[in-house]
Amino acid sequence: MIYISRDAHFCAAHKLYNEKWSKEKNEEIFGACANENWHGHNFDMTITVKGSVDLETGFVMNFKDLKKIVNEEILDKVDHKNLNLDVDFMRGKLTSCENLIMEFWKILDPKIKEITNGNSKLHCIKLKETNKNYAEYFGE
Amino acid sequence: MIYISRDAHFCAAHKLYNEKWSKEKNEEIFGACANENWHGHNFDMTITVKGSVDLETGFVMNFKDLKKIVNEEILDKVDHKNLNLDVDFMRGKLTSCENLIMEFWKILDPKIKEITNGNSKLHCIKLKETNKNYAEYFGE
Amino acid sequence: MIYISRDAHFCAAHKLYNEKWSKEKNEEIFGACANENWHGHNFDMTITVKGSVDLETGFVMNFKDLKKIVNEEILDKVDHKNLNLDVDFMRGKLTSCENLIMEFWKILDPKIKEITNGNSKLHCIKLKETNKNYAEYFGE
Amino acid sequence: MIYISRDAHFCAAHKLYNEKWSKEKNEEIFGACANENWHGHNFDMTITVKGSVDLETGFVMNFKDLKKIVNEEILDKVDHKNLNLDVDFMRGKLTSCENLIMEFWKILDPKIKEITNGNSKLHCIKLKETNKNYAEYFGE
Amino acid sequence: MIYISRDAHFCAAHKLYNEKWSKEKNEEIFGACANENWHGHNFDMTITVKGSVDLETGFVMNFKDLKKIVNEEILDKVDHKNLNLDVDFMRGKLTSCENLIMEFWKILDPKIKEITNGNSKLHCIKLKETNKNYAEYFGE
Amino acid sequence: MIYISRDAHFCAAHKLYNEKWSKEKNEEIFGACANENWHGHNFDMTITVKGSVDLETGFVMNFKDLKKIVNEEILDKVDHKNLNLDVDFMRGKLTSCENLIMEFWKILDPKIKEITNGNSKLHCIKLKETNKNYAEYFGE
Repeated sequence: MIYISRDAHFCAAHKLYNEKWSKEKNEEIFGACANENWHGHNFDMTITVKGSVDLETGFVMNFKDLKKIVNEEILDKVDHKNLNLDVDFMRGKLTSCENLIMEFWKILDPKIKEITNGNSKLHCIKLKETNKNYAEYFGE
Repeated sequence: MIYISRDAHFCAAHKLYNEKWSKEKNEEIFGACANENWHGHNFDMTITVKGSVDLETGFVMNFKDLKKIVNEEILDKVDHKNLNLDVDFMRGKLTSCENLIMEFWKILDPKIKEITNGNSKLHCIKLKETNKNYAEYFGE
Repeated sequence: MIYISRDAHFCAAHKLYNEKWSKEKNEEIFGACANENWHGHNFDMTITVKGSVDLETGFVMNFKDLKKIVNEEILDKVDHKNLNLDVDFMRGKLTSCENLIMEFWKILDPKIKEITNGNSKLHCIKLKETNKNYAEYFGE
Repeated sequence: MIYISRDAHFCAAHKLYNEKWSKEKNEEIFGACANENWHGHNFDMTITVKGSVDLETGFVMNFKDLKKIVNEEILDKVDHKNLNLDVDFMRGKLTSCENLIMEFWKILDPKIKEITNGNSKLHCIKLKETNKNYAEYFGE
Repeated sequence: MIYISRDAHFCAAHKLYNEKWSKEKNEEIFGACANENWHGHNFDMTITVKGSVDLETGFVMNFKDLKKIVNEEILDKVDHKNLNLDVDFMRGKLTSCENLIMEFWKILDPKIKEITNGNSKLHCIKLKETNKNYAEYFGE
Repeated sequence: MIYISRDAHFCAAHKLYNEKWSKEKNEEIFGACANENWHGHNFDMTITVKGSVDLETGFVMNFKDLKKIVNEEILDKVDHKNLNLDVDFMRGKLTSCENLIMEFWKILDPKIKEITNGNSKLHCIKLKETNKNYAEYFGE
C-alpha cells in the first residue's frame, strides 16, 4: 500500500456566521471571521490517495488523473468564489475548514474509486486556511 | 546603512472591478478576480526600513516599534476585512496589489520617520497576493 | 472524526548534556549540541486535536481556544527562555525534542479535554528543531 | 513510542518510460515525463523512525546516525545521478516515486534495525518530486 | 514606479560540462554536476517587471499577460526537457543558472516591451536551482 | 553583471543586553531578548556575490568555493555556539542581526575578492533571525 498526495490551491471569500445567532454571539464565537462584509484566504489543500502500485506504470494512480479530478470537481467550483454564496454544496452550511473537507470528501471519494476501478481510494483531505491553522479528514 | 525587514500577514476579501466598465469588459481584463460576490487571499507583506545602526541598541529601529506601527496602522484596518468595502483609504480605488502598497506607503512613511526621529526611513513595501504573484514599491 | 492543527513557534536556548557522563562522552554522543555555553533554535510546533464537528459552530474546537491554551500553557513558559535553566517541567531532564513533546503532552492533554468538555482530545504534538529534524508524539 | 523524522534532498535526472510500450503509449500515459532525453527534479525526502526514548540520551535514535545512514545508503547513490542509468537497485524498474520509496525501504529498514539494536524501526519514507506531488510508504 | 513579480517553475535535466576540457578537469571544476548521464532540478524562477500603474486597471501589467508570455516563451521550451539537448537557445552553451537567465532575458525583454507598448519593462530574472543556490540578472 | 546567492543556516544562542544599562532598561528596550539565561535561533543567511560570467565555466563564481568560504569563515565559528560568549569577532558587541552582518562582511568581503582574483565581489548579506524579521547589508 502506497499513499500519494497532490497539493492544490484556491483563493476564496467567506465568513463564519450562524444565522440562528445574534450578531453579538457570532462575533463572540467567530471573532473577526464573522465580519459581515466577508474576508478571504489562499486555501492550501492536499489530497491523499492510497492503493497498490500498478506494475505497468509504477503508479498508485496517475497524478494527471488526480489533478484533473481535483481541478474539475473542486477547484473550478471554489477558486475565486464566495464559499457562502457561490458554492452549491455549501449552501446553508457553515464554511469552516472542517465542513468544507467533509463536503469535498463526498465529491472526490466516488470519483477516485471510479477512475481507478476501485484499485485506489481517497485516504485524506487536508485544508490549510492560514499559515497557522489546518484541518484533516480521513472519511470516518 | 542597514536594511531591516518585517513580515506581516492579513486575510481579506476583495474584487477587481472597474465601475466605469461593463461586466463583460471587467471579466475580460480581470478574469475570475472580477467575481461580483468577492474572493479573498492570505496577503503576505514585507516592510523594509533603512537606516544606520544605533550604537546603544545595535538596531536600525526596534523591531517591536516596527511591529506596533504595522499592526496599528495597517493590519488592524485590513485583516479579516473587505478591501473594497471596509477600508477607508481604498474607497473608490481598485484594490490591486499595486494600489494597496502605494496607499500603505502614504500611511507608514511618516509614522516611521516620526518614531525614529528621522534616523530611519521606509525603503520598500512588498505585497504577495498568491503563492505566485507579488508587487513591490520603493516610494518613487 | 476531524483532525485540526495549529502551528506555533518559539525561540529558545538549550544544550544536550548528560551530567552523569564525562565531557568527552557528551561530545561524542551529542556533538556540537553539547556546547557548554548553549546554542538555540527557532522551534516550530504543530498541535493536532481530534473530535467530531459541532453543528452550531462547524468546529472541532475553536481555533481561538486552542491558540489561547498553547500560548498560556507552553509558549509563555518556553519562548525566549533557556530550556535547561528556565523551564520548571524540564528541570533535570535532557532537553531533546522527544522529551519536550512528552512533557508538553502532559500539560496540554488535560487542558484540551477540559475546555472541550471531553468532546475533543489531543492527537499529536510535532516539534521541529531545525529545518531538517523533527519529532512527533501521539500520547502512547 | 515517539516518531522522529529527518529531511534529505537529492537532485537527479530520470524519465518514466515502459520499454514494453510504444512511444505513443508512453507519451499518452506519462506525458512530458516520457521525454527520451530525460528531465529531472530536486527530490525532497523525509525518513521517519519510531521507537521508545532512551533515558540516557533522550533520543529515539541519534539524528547523527540517521543522517549517516541516509547519506551513505541513499544520497550517495542517487544525488546528481540518472535514476534510470546510474542506480543499481532501480535497474529495469520504472523510476516513479512509488517504486523509488519501496526500494529505499528495502535498504534502510535493516540498517536502522541494526544500528539501533532493534529498539527503533523505520516507520515511513516520504518522497516529494515536485512542489505539488509526493508519495509515502509505511512498509506494508 | 512599481515592481511586479511572478513565480514560475520547471523541471529539467542538464549537466555542466565544458567540451574543451578533459573529463578530469570537468569533474574538478563542476563536481557531481559533470555526471555524464545527467542530473536534474526543479528550477524556481521569478520574473520581475517594472512600470507605472495604469489608472484604469490598477496594474503595472496584467499578471495574466505576464503568465502567458512566461509560459509560452520559456516554460514550454524548458519544462520536462534536457537543457543541453532539447533547448535551441542553449545549444553549445554551458547550462549554468547564469547563462540560462541571460538567454531568458533576450527572449522576455522584447516580448514584455511589446505587449505593454513600452509602458513596462523587464527588471530582473531570478533562477533558483537548488534549495540553497540561485542567480539573478538585471539586464546589464 | 550577474548576482549569485547561496543560503546557509546556523543555530546559536544569544541575548541582547547592553552592559551599560540597568536590567530594567534592558528589558524595556530588548524585551524577552534580554533574558539573562539566553535564548536562541535558527539563523537563515543569504550571501550574494556579483560579477561577470566566466566564459569557460558559465559561473560568476563557483558555488563550491562560495560554500567553502561561508562554511569555514562563518558557519564553523557561529553554528551551535553562543554568539556573545564563543565568537571572537562579536566580543563586546551587541549581537543584533545588524551588528552580526556588518562583522560577517568584514570577514567575507576580502576572502571573496581574493579567491576570485577581484573578478567578483560581495554584494549583500541577509540574516533572518525569526520567521518574521531579517536584516540586510550592502557594505556601505
